[in-house]
Amino acid sequence: MNASSPPLPPSLSAELAARFGARFSTAEAVRLHHGKDESSFAARPPDAVVFAASTEEVAAAVRLCHAHRTPVIAFGTGTSLEGHLLAVQGGVCIDLSGMNAVAAVRPADLDATVQAGVTRKQLNAALRDTGLFFPIDPGADASLGGMAATRASGTNAVRYGTMRENVLGMTVVLADGRVIETGSRARKSSAGYDLTRLFVGSEGTLGIITELTVRLYPIPEAISSAVCAFAGIADAVRTVIETIQLGVPVARVELLDALALKAINQYSKTNLREAPTLFFEFHGSPAGVAEQAQAVQEIAASHGGVDFDWATRPEDRSRLWQARHDAYYACLGLRPGARSLTTDVCVPISQLAACIAETIADIERSGLVAPLVGHVGDGNFHLLLLADPADAEENERAKAFSNRLVERAIRMDGTCTGEHGVGLGKRKYLALEHGEDALGVMRAIKSALDPLEILNPGKMLPD
Amino acid sequence: MNASSPPLPPSLSAELAARFGARFSTAEAVRLHHGKDESSFAARPPDAVVFAASTEEVAAAVRLCHAHRTPVIAFGTGTSLEGHLLAVQGGVCIDLSGMNAVAAVRPADLDATVQAGVTRKQLNAALRDTGLFFPIDPGADASLGGMAATRASGTNAVRYGTMRENVLGMTVVLADGRVIETGSRARKSSAGYDLTRLFVGSEGTLGIITELTVRLYPIPEAISSAVCAFAGIADAVRTVIETIQLGVPVARVELLDALALKAINQYSKTNLREAPTLFFEFHGSPAGVAEQAQAVQEIAASHGGVDFDWATRPEDRSRLWQARHDAYYACLGLRPGARSLTTDVCVPISQLAACIAETIADIERSGLVAPLVGHVGDGNFHLLLLADPADAEENERAKAFSNRLVERAIRMDGTCTGEHGVGLGKRKYLALEHGEDALGVMRAIKSALDPLEILNPGKMLPD
Repeated sequence: MNASSPPLPPSLSAELAARFGARFSTAEAVRLHHGKDESSFAARPPDAVVFAASTEEVAAAVRLCHAHRTPVIAFGTGTSLEGHLLAVQGGVCIDLSGMNAVAAVRPADLDATVQAGVTRKQLNAALRDTGLFFPIDPGADASLGGMAATRASGTNAVRYGTMRENVLGMTVVLADGRVIETGSRARKSSAGYDLTRLFVGSEGTLGIITELTVRLYPIPEAISSAVCAFAGIADAVRTVIETIQLGVPVARVELLDALALKAINQYSKTNLREAPTLFFEFHGSPAGVAEQAQAVQEIAASHGGVDFDWATRPEDRSRLWQARHDAYYACLGLRPGARSLTTDVCVPISQLAACIAETIADIERSGLVAPLVGHVGDGNFHLLLLADPADAEENERAKAFSNRLVERAIRMDGTCTGEHGVGLGKRKYLALEHGEDALGVMRAIKSALDPLEILNPGKMLPD
Repeated sequence: MNASSPPLPPSLSAELAARFGARFSTAEAVRLHHGKDESSFAARPPDAVVFAASTEEVAAAVRLCHAHRTPVIAFGTGTSLEGHLLAVQGGVCIDLSGMNAVAAVRPADLDATVQAGVTRKQLNAALRDTGLFFPIDPGADASLGGMAATRASGTNAVRYGTMRENVLGMTVVLADGRVIETGSRARKSSAGYDLTRLFVGSEGTLGIITELTVRLYPIPEAISSAVCAFAGIADAVRTVIETIQLGVPVARVELLDALALKAINQYSKTNLREAPTLFFEFHGSPAGVAEQAQAVQEIAASHGGVDFDWATRPEDRSRLWQARHDAYYACLGLRPGARSLTTDVCVPISQLAACIAETIADIERSGLVAPLVGHVGDGNFHLLLLADPADAEENERAKAFSNRLVERAIRMDGTCTGEHGVGLGKRKYLALEHGEDALGVMRAIKSALDPLEILNPGKMLPD
C-alpha cells in the first residue's frame, strides 16, 4: 500500500484475486516496478497490479474498483516523463503490456487496429511486408495506448502530425466499466462530439484505452537525410523557420546544441563538430526529395551552415540518425548519477528564435548543465536539466529554471508541454495556460465522466 | 414566436432591446430569414434575432437568455444542409455575420485569427498579398464559425484535412455567458483535454464560437488540374483507390456521375462527355506536380480513362474546376422546383467501390433522380435526391433511400455524415453509428456544459 493512501479494501483484493488468479499481484517487486517511470519524480507504487489480457478483463477490473471507489491507473511501458503512472493515491494498476496483439492491418485503407499494449516498434515490425509504416516516434518504444493517452509525437510530427491526427478510433473502458467505441474507420466524420480527440491526451483520467485504430502511411519511394552544423544556435533556428515558412515538406528537422553534440560524440564514438546542428530527413519521390534537399541546403548556406553531410543510402541514414536517437541517453551520460528534469515547451515558430535565445541566456545565468534537443519544425524543444538527486539546492535551481521557461513559452502564445503531457509536473501551469474558466470546463468533463474520481486521480487537473 | 414553443419572456425581450437597440429584432421578415437554411426542412423561425458585434455582446445575449432559460442559436451564413439553425424550440438567434473582422494574419506562423462571421472567401481575399491560403472549401461560402461548428471540409480535405485539423484555437461563449479560450498557437500541445476538438463539430450545442485561429498554407509553387472520363463509375472509383493507396499526395480528387455531367453541361454550357468523371488537382513543385500527374494518368489509363484534359494555366484550371464548383446548383437545375435531400456518407476507401455500386443499384430500383458528386479521396460522396416538395410519396421514397444508404455506410465502418453534420436530420443515426454508451458519454458532456439545455436544443443528440 501507499504510505499516504488507505490500503486496498480486503474484499476488493479477494475479488480481483478470484477473477485474475496469478495475474493479480501485491508482491513488492511488482508494485515497485509499476510505481516509477522515467521522470525525476520519486516512486509511488500502487497497492496491487492486475495484468489484463483483454478489454473485457480491463472492464471487469475497473467495475470492481468502481464498486469500491478505488483508484485505477493504466500502465503500458512505464516510459512517462511526467509521473503519469505514479499511484499518488494508491489503488490498482492495470498493466496492459500483455495486450499486444496487432488485431488487423488493412493496407487498402492505410490503417491498423492494435491492442493498447502494442509498442510503436512492434507495430512497425508487423508492417514490414506491407510497404507501410506508422510515423509517430517518441524517444521511448512506448505503447500505443500510452502514446494516445499523452498525445505523444516525436521527430516525424512536423510532416505526419501527432497522435491527435493519427488515431481514427478507440475502444475505451469508462469509469464504471462500460466499454465504448469512439470514431469510425472513415477518414472524416461530422457525426457528434469528437470523443476520439477527447480521450487522446486525457492521460487515463477519463477512461482506459484498450484498443486503437491508427493511420498508416506508404513508405516513401525516396528518403534522404542531412546533417548541418552552424556557428550559433540562432543561425540554425533561422534556417528552420525559413524552411517551414517556405512550405518545404520536411519529414524531420531536429536541433541539437553544442553540448548535446559533445554528449553524442562521447556516447556514440562519433566525430561530429561540437556545434549547434540540424538533422533533416526528406520523404518523397526521388525528384521531390532532391528538390527539398536543395532548397534546404540553400537556406542553410545563407545562414552559414557548414559540414553538410547528405545521405541517401539506408546505412548512411541510419548512422546519422542513430546519433540523434541516442541523444537522450548520451546527454544523461554527461553527468553520471544525475537525473534529468526534462522540459517540453512548444511555441509558435515566429517566437522560436527569441524563446531559445532567452532560454540559453537563462541556462548560463543558472549554472545548470542542460543540453538542448528539439523537434524545432513544430516549435517544440527539450532541455535535459541534469541535476544530482542528492543536491537539493541544485534541484530547486532546476525547477525554478523550468518554471521560468514555461512562463516564457506561455507568454509567447505557446504551451507548457508539446508532447510529454501534464501528469504530475505540469498541473500547476494549466490555469496559466488555459485560464480558470477553460480549466473549469475540463473539470466539468472530468466530473461528468468520472464522478467518483477513480481514474488516475491527482493527475493533469490541479487540485 | 414559434408555433410549438412558448413565446419569448417579455422581460427578456425588454432586456435584449435595451442592450442591443436596433440590433435586436422581432420583425417577421428578419425572423423568417434566420429560420431557414439550404436543407429540405421547413422553416422554423426564432422568436427574435440579435445582431452581435463582439464576443462581449454574444456573451451578454447568452447571459440574458441563460437567466430566462431561453434557447440560443448561432447564425453565420444560413447555409447548413441539415437544419442546424432551425428554431425548433423557439428562442433567440444570435447572428454573427457582422463579426467579420480578420483580426490577425501571421505569415511567419502560417496562421490567422478571425471573427466567427468571416467567410472562407473573405479570408482568402484578405490573404491575397501573403502568398498563403486557407484550404477548407465547403460548397457554400460559409462562415468560419459555422464551418468549425459543423466540422466542415470540402474538396481539399484529402490533402489538407478538415476543420478538425485546421483550427488551432477558439474563443467560445459558454452556456452561462462565460468566455473561454481553447488551444494555443503552438502547433502541438499535450496540455489538458482537447477542448478545441470538442467544440469543433459541436454544432452550437456546447458553446458559441466567436473567434478562431486557423492554419494557413503556402500557395503551392505549381498547381495543375486534370479531368478524365471513364466507361463506368467502378473504373473511376478504382482509379481513386489506387491513387490514394500509392500515396500520391493529390490535393483534390472529385467524382461526378454521368447525370451530374449532364447537369453541368446544361448549366455551364460546357461540352464534357456525359460519363463518370474524375476531377484532379495537384499541388507542389513543378517537378512534383508533373510526377503526380504522370502517376495518376497511368493509373487512370489502366482503368480505361479517356478524354484526359490537363491544365496548368490558371485560366484553364479555373474553367475545369468551375464546372465542378457549379455542380450543386447545376444538379438542382435538373428538376426545376425540386428540393434536394442531400446525402453525405463517408466510408473507408476499401469499401468505396462496393458502397457506390450498391447505392447506384438502389437509386435505379428507387426511381429517384439523384446525381452523385463526391470527395472520393476521403471516401465521402453525396447524392442530391431531387424530389418535388409537393409529392409526399416521392419524399418518403427519398427518405427511405437515404436511410438505406446511411445503414449501408455504417455497416461498412463508415459514418452517416462526412462533413455536413448531424443537425436535425441525422440525429436518429447516432446510436447506430456510435452505440448507446458512447452516445451516453456525449449526453453527459452536453449536460455538464449546458445543464439548462439552452444551446441549440433539439439538435445533434437524439431525444
